Amino acid sequence: MIDLRSDTVTRPSDAMREAASDAEVGDDVYGEDPTVNDLQERAADVLGTEAALFVPSGTMGNQIAARVHTERGQELLCERESHIYKWELAGLAQHSEVQTRPIDAGDRGVVDPEQVQEGYVDATSHRPGTGLLALENTHNSKGGTAIAPERIAAAAEVAHDLGVPVHLDGARLFNAAAALDRSAAEFVEPVDTVMCCLSKGLGAPVGSLLAGPKSTIEAARRTRKLMGGGMRQVGIVAAPGRHALANRHRLDEDHRRAARLADGLADVAGLSVEPPETNIVLVETDRPAEGFLDDCESEGVLGVPFDDHVVRFCTHWDVDDDDIGRAIEAVGRVA
Amino acid sequence: MIDLRSDTVTRPSDAMREAASDAEVGDDVYGEDPTVNDLQERAADVLGTEAALFVPSGTMGNQIAARVHTERGQELLCERESHIYKWELAGLAQHSEVQTRPIDAGDRGVVDPEQVQEGYVDATSHRPGTGLLALENTHNSKGGTAIAPERIAAAAEVAHDLGVPVHLDGARLFNAAAALDRSAAEFVEPVDTVMCCLSKGLGAPVGSLLAGPKSTIEAARRTRKLMGGGMRQVGIVAAPGRHALANRHRLDEDHRRAARLADGLADVAGLSVEPPETNIVLVETDRPAEGFLDDCESEGVLGVPFDDHVVRFCTHWDVDDDDIGRAIEAVGRVA
Amino acid sequence: MIDLRSDTVTRPSDAMREAASDAEVGDDVYGEDPTVNDLQERAADVLGTEAALFVPSGTMGNQIAARVHTERGQELLCERESHIYKWELAGLAQHSEVQTRPIDAGDRGVVDPEQVQEGYVDATSHRPGTGLLALENTHNSKGGTAIAPERIAAAAEVAHDLGVPVHLDGARLFNAAAALDRSAAEFVEPVDTVMCCLSKGLGAPVGSLLAGPKSTIEAARRTRKLMGGGMRQVGIVAAPGRHALANRHRLDEDHRRAARLADGLADVAGLSVEPPETNIVLVETDRPAEGFLDDCESEGVLGVPFDDHVVRFCTHWDVDDDDIGRAIEAVGRVA
Amino acid sequence: MIDLRSDTVTRPSDAMREAASDAEVGDDVYGEDPTVNDLQERAADVLGTEAALFVPSGTMGNQIAARVHTERGQELLCERESHIYKWELAGLAQHSEVQTRPIDAGDRGVVDPEQVQEGYVDATSHRPGTGLLALENTHNSKGGTAIAPERIAAAAEVAHDLGVPVHLDGARLFNAAAALDRSAAEFVEPVDTVMCCLSKGLGAPVGSLLAGPKSTIEAARRTRKLMGGGMRQVGIVAAPGRHALANRHRLDEDHRRAARLADGLADVAGLSVEPPETNIVLVETDRPAEGFLDDCESEGVLGVPFDDHVVRFCTHWDVDDDDIGRAIEAVGRVA
Repeated sequence: MIDLRSDTVTRPSDAMREAASDAEVGDDVYGEDPTVNDLQERAADVLGTEAALFVPSGTMGNQIAARVHTERGQELLCERESHIYKWELAGLAQHSEVQTRPIDAGDRGVVDPEQVQEGYVDATSHRPGTGLLALENTHNSKGGTAIAPERIAAAAEVAHDLGVPVHLDGARLFNAAAALDRSAAEFVEPVDTVMCCLSKGLGAPVGSLLAGPKSTIEAARRTRKLMGGGMRQVGIVAAPGRHALANRHRLDEDHRRAARLADGLADVAGLSVEPPETNIVLVETDRPAEGFLDDCESEGVLGVPFDDHVVRFCTHWDVDDDDIGRAIEAVGRVA
Repeated sequence: MIDLRSDTVTRPSDAMREAASDAEVGDDVYGEDPTVNDLQERAADVLGTEAALFVPSGTMGNQIAARVHTERGQELLCERESHIYKWELAGLAQHSEVQTRPIDAGDRGVVDPEQVQEGYVDATSHRPGTGLLALENTHNSKGGTAIAPERIAAAAEVAHDLGVPVHLDGARLFNAAAALDRSAAEFVEPVDTVMCCLSKGLGAPVGSLLAGPKSTIEAARRTRKLMGGGMRQVGIVAAPGRHALANRHRLDEDHRRAARLADGLADVAGLSVEPPETNIVLVETDRPAEGFLDDCESEGVLGVPFDDHVVRFCTHWDVDDDDIGRAIEAVGRVA
Repeated sequence: MIDLRSDTVTRPSDAMREAASDAEVGDDVYGEDPTVNDLQERAADVLGTEAALFVPSGTMGNQIAARVHTERGQELLCERESHIYKWELAGLAQHSEVQTRPIDAGDRGVVDPEQVQEGYVDATSHRPGTGLLALENTHNSKGGTAIAPERIAAAAEVAHDLGVPVHLDGARLFNAAAALDRSAAEFVEPVDTVMCCLSKGLGAPVGSLLAGPKSTIEAARRTRKLMGGGMRQVGIVAAPGRHALANRHRLDEDHRRAARLADGLADVAGLSVEPPETNIVLVETDRPAEGFLDDCESEGVLGVPFDDHVVRFCTHWDVDDDDIGRAIEAVGRVA
Repeated sequence: MIDLRSDTVTRPSDAMREAASDAEVGDDVYGEDPTVNDLQERAADVLGTEAALFVPSGTMGNQIAARVHTERGQELLCERESHIYKWELAGLAQHSEVQTRPIDAGDRGVVDPEQVQEGYVDATSHRPGTGLLALENTHNSKGGTAIAPERIAAAAEVAHDLGVPVHLDGARLFNAAAALDRSAAEFVEPVDTVMCCLSKGLGAPVGSLLAGPKSTIEAARRTRKLMGGGMRQVGIVAAPGRHALANRHRLDEDHRRAARLADGLADVAGLSVEPPETNIVLVETDRPAEGFLDDCESEGVLGVPFDDHVVRFCTHWDVDDDDIGRAIEAVGRVA
């Protein structure tokens, strides 16, 4: 079975498994796990922030960020298809009690500075006031679009001028960096906090990082405890996480394979495919997505439905060139 | 000073004052105030619902409705300029912990059935699920547009087919009824609960009503207590409220005056005015709204800013034909 | 029927009704109601605070206070039988998301300084930290006990030394002042905010006041809007409220009658009655409270159950000396 | 350094490390990690429940339980020194918006049936109603007291008769089972859900389990996602967790060592020690706890402050008989 559902399905490498086995550990609730401390320092270094915090999931990283940046009853600006708004069980309303004001940023999910200005609300006796701008890069729901640091900076600048902090959901930030051949830190420089996942394209079994200024990350540590994200000998998963961080240099391979997959499916009758920007390939079919995917599964290929007639295929390190060739043939047979 | 800021500024009539003075009262927390009980019955009768509950404000009525219809962590569909979303201090996120999914219903604020279908979200392991559709009629931010019962019904039908209840913010429902020459009950029939204000065009000093099925209103009574809306000898304000309810038959007068005001300002250079549907006149100026309104005030006319270059004038029973004439002249001088 | 259930059942006096009828009013959401403004100033004056805010109920006043003083996730210290904890539908957890740490202050409900010290919690990585001390005077559930300003001050001083603000639920503060022959301001001086009701012993039909420093009351005004407590021509109820405020000088009468009632019931076999401190008489019966009260009702006297074998009778201005005499006889027949 | 601060500081065994390295894994958000699935089944089997769910921490397990059992605005009954109330950052108010009604269960923390009955509150128009009884076993703050299944059952029975579900915080449940020579399932049988930690005495690097009926655990899985506890290739930590589960049979050793430690310190002047029931030794000193612990640290022994004059020492598998001997000597020198 060629599993193209998500880059979250990757199995840890032998090196990661060995690292887990050999990890030097301590009690991270006391801040004494040397491996997680080291991972956090390395991540802060790569991202260009003062500090970073290991969290069990990207969702927790995003939700903690919303919580530490906002006060209850404020508004949060984000793209209408962004993960933090669409896929996190209304956590923004539940954990932070903020009201979401979604922005429609079109096909590539690039929030324009004008949209930030337009969506901004002053706090008055009747209106909540805007407390946070949350951006996403790559933008998952738009097909893994890689947004340039300059576009992030332009939106963030307007927000900052209005006194509004900015959080970047960089679950796949390193894919954006690889695709645009920029350093991760360039994307992070204009924002206040960033969340990035070790467990997607980077291949770690478990974990994400929330990074930003030291004082914000200290507050985030307390909120992590509140959320139940304080764990003990975390080195066991942080050690593979260090390998995952190094994996950011191999993401080009996933992008190349995604391009090849898209190219191979582009000529198939009944399918419509745009060239992907990173490792996510959105395929429009003239059949309902669910039935189409069932048939793909029978042919040995897994994907996920993204809309009534859109399916997502995602490349990752457990998929090689041969798999891509076979996937093209299999999906071709189905369509 | 001709006060056209809002229909909330109306002073109670002599009859209302007398009614307040003579009201038979009791402790409404025990359900023993005969005047409020009578008002609630009359309101239910006019609105065609099983029951109604007196609440201190329209905001409380709307927020209680959201709370009794939803479970925390669901989504709420509403128009992006609706009062419940825009002007109630993010109460939806704070009181009900629901996530808002706003619909852009264009110039008149009429939510289409397709938009309900499109905005609806199924509850899954990642997605909150839609818990309520909230409509508004007349739609304040769109300029007091009066939406026909059939349009309300069309949107509500889709919601109901999806298992989603519908609340109608009818702060100015009787204006819609008057403008379209339909009974209030016709607008309420397709929805589950309705909130309507006694203190706007109807002229009561204080109070709104939340109406719907008996079991819902019983739950609302408990939530009202939680919100601090349980009051004692409420008859003192419910008695003028009964007069206000009867005032629904005179709203045509306000609409006629609003039309005359719009007409009078339509020809003024530098102003752009659409013919109003009810008692709200939105005027676009080529000057910033704030400065324009300051000058209007100097000339004896009050309005409120609605957007950078848009001001709202609102007619009500404390404004007569002479006032309208003088307002046209004064605003004309300013522009 | 002699209604001794609560001092909330009082009907407004003729003077109050006349005041309602004649009240000069405006739109209080715009801060333009001269009568409510005047009432707020008078109340601030009587209470010795910078500012005061009219709210529809004591519950709303208390809940707003908790909200403006605390941050979500803090702890709140209060007496375990206090109204804010026991009778307000867990509003502390719902509106403010604070955790309550109740203090058992024994028979009279006087919180000792040591208990504040003991209940105080420092904010750490695992512990919430104490955000507010809420006191109550008179203490309803303890039988209307009147707590001396010095006792309030002693508890408040410890709280302040620990950096914790203090709110006083003074729903019946003027009863305490009358009973102890002290000015209301003496009770308020040691605390940060106070809530007092116009609609209990003072006899107003509707309303309470939250008083404190100007900046706190400004924040409270915004929270009142959030809670749905922003009303329009509030002068209609504020005008009777001004009369109610003046009524504080007649509360001794209620206390005298409560003493007489307690005295008259003290000798009745099967009843056990402590001499009341204010207008609340707690009567212990050897029968279940519910059945006992049913029989009292048949004999023309109403009370409320307070515990399995305890009933509460409350005197107020709609009850005169004759009523007390007849109530003693009636209850005597029942017991 | 002999680290007696907590049984959370244990380092994973070689077998655990090997298991982590060799674990068969999958994406647990899709329910496809065979190792975590197997761990959950084994845990359910040991605990005698239908199902179990792996969670990153005991705090998350407890907070999810509170959330799935209650509705916002209910009351929760628990012991006043219980972990869920005292050490979880007011999560009960924040995640579940429930109001806590603490019970003082004295020296051993055994909640009596009468206390459940007394603390229970019926839902009325003013009162929240009780939604959950949360018990704890062993009771950490009382010194690791092991409460017999019959005592748990007695309290739970009253709760169930009142329609109130029961959650057991069994962070150290297996210590109770070992101390009383009963099966874990006997403690769980009378309650609805149980949380137990793999990462304390059992020695796993990370993780806890929430167990109960299938439908409850399904709801808990969704709430885990909301809390950010959905992780990916969890087998890496679930595999050591399986070893930890088997470790329940060696807890007697920790208890024996705790007894020896207590015995050795009992005769030291200036110290007062009760014989421990499990692996927690509370030592009262005549000096302030902080300074005492600083001196202990200088002598090579670590503990944690529990009260002004009380310190906690905790035995676990990284401490052997020699360590205990040296700890007795070192603490003796300090005292």
